[in-house]
Amino acid sequence: MKNFSYKKLFQFTQAIFEKIGFLEKEAILATQALLQADLRGIDSHGVARLSGYVRLWEAGRLNPKPNIQVLYETPSTATLDGDSGVGLVVAQKAMEIAIQKAETYGTGWVAVQNSNHFGIAGYHAMLALQKNMIGIALTNASPLVAPTFSTDRLLGTNPIAVAIPAKNEPPFVADFATTTASNGKLEILERKGEKAPWGWLQDAQGNITTDTQARKQGGALLPLGSDYEHGSHKGYCLGALVDIFSGVFSGANYALWVPPFVNYLPLPQNPVGKGIGHFLGAIRVDAFRPADEFLNHMDNWIQTFRNAKAVEGKRVLIPGEPERIAEQERLRNGIPLMPSVVEDLYNLAEKFKILFPQN
Amino acid sequence: MKNFSYKKLFQFTQAIFEKIGFLEKEAILATQALLQADLRGIDSHGVARLSGYVRLWEAGRLNPKPNIQVLYETPSTATLDGDSGVGLVVAQKAMEIAIQKAETYGTGWVAVQNSNHFGIAGYHAMLALQKNMIGIALTNASPLVAPTFSTDRLLGTNPIAVAIPAKNEPPFVADFATTTASNGKLEILERKGEKAPWGWLQDAQGNITTDTQARKQGGALLPLGSDYEHGSHKGYCLGALVDIFSGVFSGANYALWVPPFVNYLPLPQNPVGKGIGHFLGAIRVDAFRPADEFLNHMDNWIQTFRNAKAVEGKRVLIPGEPERIAEQERLRNGIPLMPSVVEDLYNLAEKFKILFPQN
Repeated sequence: MKNFSYKKLFQFTQAIFEKIGFLEKEAILATQALLQADLRGIDSHGVARLSGYVRLWEAGRLNPKPNIQVLYETPSTATLDGDSGVGLVVAQKAMEIAIQKAETYGTGWVAVQNSNHFGIAGYHAMLALQKNMIGIALTNASPLVAPTFSTDRLLGTNPIAVAIPAKNEPPFVADFATTTASNGKLEILERKGEKAPWGWLQDAQGNITTDTQARKQGGALLPLGSDYEHGSHKGYCLGALVDIFSGVFSGANYALWVPPFVNYLPLPQNPVGKGIGHFLGAIRVDAFRPADEFLNHMDNWIQTFRNAKAVEGKRVLIPGEPERIAEQERLRNGIPLMPSVVEDLYNLAEKFKILFPQN
Repeated sequence: MKNFSYKKLFQFTQAIFEKIGFLEKEAILATQALLQADLRGIDSHGVARLSGYVRLWEAGRLNPKPNIQVLYETPSTATLDGDSGVGLVVAQKAMEIAIQKAETYGTGWVAVQNSNHFGIAGYHAMLALQKNMIGIALTNASPLVAPTFSTDRLLGTNPIAVAIPAKNEPPFVADFATTTASNGKLEILERKGEKAPWGWLQDAQGNITTDTQARKQGGALLPLGSDYEHGSHKGYCLGALVDIFSGVFSGANYALWVPPFVNYLPLPQNPVGKGIGHFLGAIRVDAFRPADEFLNHMDNWIQTFRNAKAVEGKRVLIPGEPERIAEQERLRNGIPLMPSVVEDLYNLAEKFKILFPQN
């Protein structure tokens, strides 16, 4: 592991997006969204995926200069056509519209079709915090997860993010996949040759297995809850809701038709919509009571949970706290990248004839 | 177990609500909401709780003739003061307002303070289906659940319900507590003297236990996911979101301050708001794309999941399907009530000098 400064990784990533045809302004937006994952410690969703986005562009599946347009709207809602742009940018435009609508109508809700992966959901939800609003971000993703009692992979890891501002306390930021464990964690175990804990995945027959290889042999990730006895039907409901809000609301693909991020997998036949789908929401903090009252009670909520009695040797965490601590640390000390990621970025540098930073 | 007809239980329940001072119209609304739990097979939330509502009234905590009022609003949002009315009725008024707002603005969102328990969340979400809308219902509840790594009980079982209409298919209706298992299931195990499965609850020190008695000895229910390795921090996020949307948005109580349903427990000291809180939402099916397109794709979504390959001996279920089948069966054959529930209702009949139905 070697550490790289945020600033240098930013310049490099922005340059790559510009090399594949992004306008400078949109290259900056995409880089901000992508690197937020690295800063917040969600390494699987950051620069480690930069070459993946480049491969999508090479395959003709990512439009570097999309004409992002509102297709449909009501006072508090809109549907956006991402024109095959990168979700990293498209979702930010969607949140901008949601915020504008919330300014006038109290809340704003934007469904997005014809997009690509948008990085971490939390980044997009947190955009609303800058306007003193509550932000919500959902996205569907290519199918890796089996519904309860099924052996078919029909759902993505379909994350839910909600960011809620407070007054003196840092914001509450929930951001989680609707599976028991993320695909990223399984990849790490696989690389180390280790077994997965019980309940993270099933084999091709639908039996829970600890073999991480099962993912490549007809198996599937499990919805939050792991099995029926532990509430996997609730995790299935959550993943389904994210799929419907992101895909069926917007006119994007859903279920098995959501296109894969990796370009070596074929695109699903007979698509039911366009690209992948997102769903963004913004709620004014004074939509339900005066802003000051709301923010003071959020402070009290956060302090109450932070000061709750903890299990011996542990601390009660507020959603978003571990990621905020990681961000402070990594802005100071740099972002640690695995050798395979560094090599990947170095290859991109070679391909596009730009300098790769040494730290 | 003895079966009672829906019609007779309805008349009886309505009569009890009228005896404690409800207007006829509101007694009917309350009965509809309460008995929907019995019809849908969620026995813990139906007539089994009727005597609990009566005890709340006896304790002066339930206002039979509330003056339910809008406290605050924006075009797409409102906050309702339930005036200590029963949630069974108050939440229906809230959904009515959400639907009106959605008719004009695309979506409508109503936070409710100063309410009491509202029965099953699914009933309130499903009200939107009658207007061809998507319905959402959340409520907080008295604290039984410990956040991940805590030994304090700070969250209720805080359910989430979302009802989504389709065209020819029955609607998609998700309705679930944000815990691994419901308190009702634990009560049943306790009555039978059986152990709970791993992961449903913890003891006073925060260790997972199978002893159902732990609930009464300083233990707690666990958030969906059971432990950190299996994603309990995600279940904690979900329960927290429901608490904040229901309690902090509205000016109701939240966290440890949510008042208990049972009147033998003391009210929490220094309340931070009024009563318990709900959050209701309505979204027009044509808020994001033409109604027909949306409804056709919902049919396709539902058929895709229903026809997914199932694990041997199982069937892939659509959220709401088991409850719909229970409803059809119970409308036909009656609602089975346990002897203890029958006795409870019989005692109410005696107290209020009304006839208790024999079947």
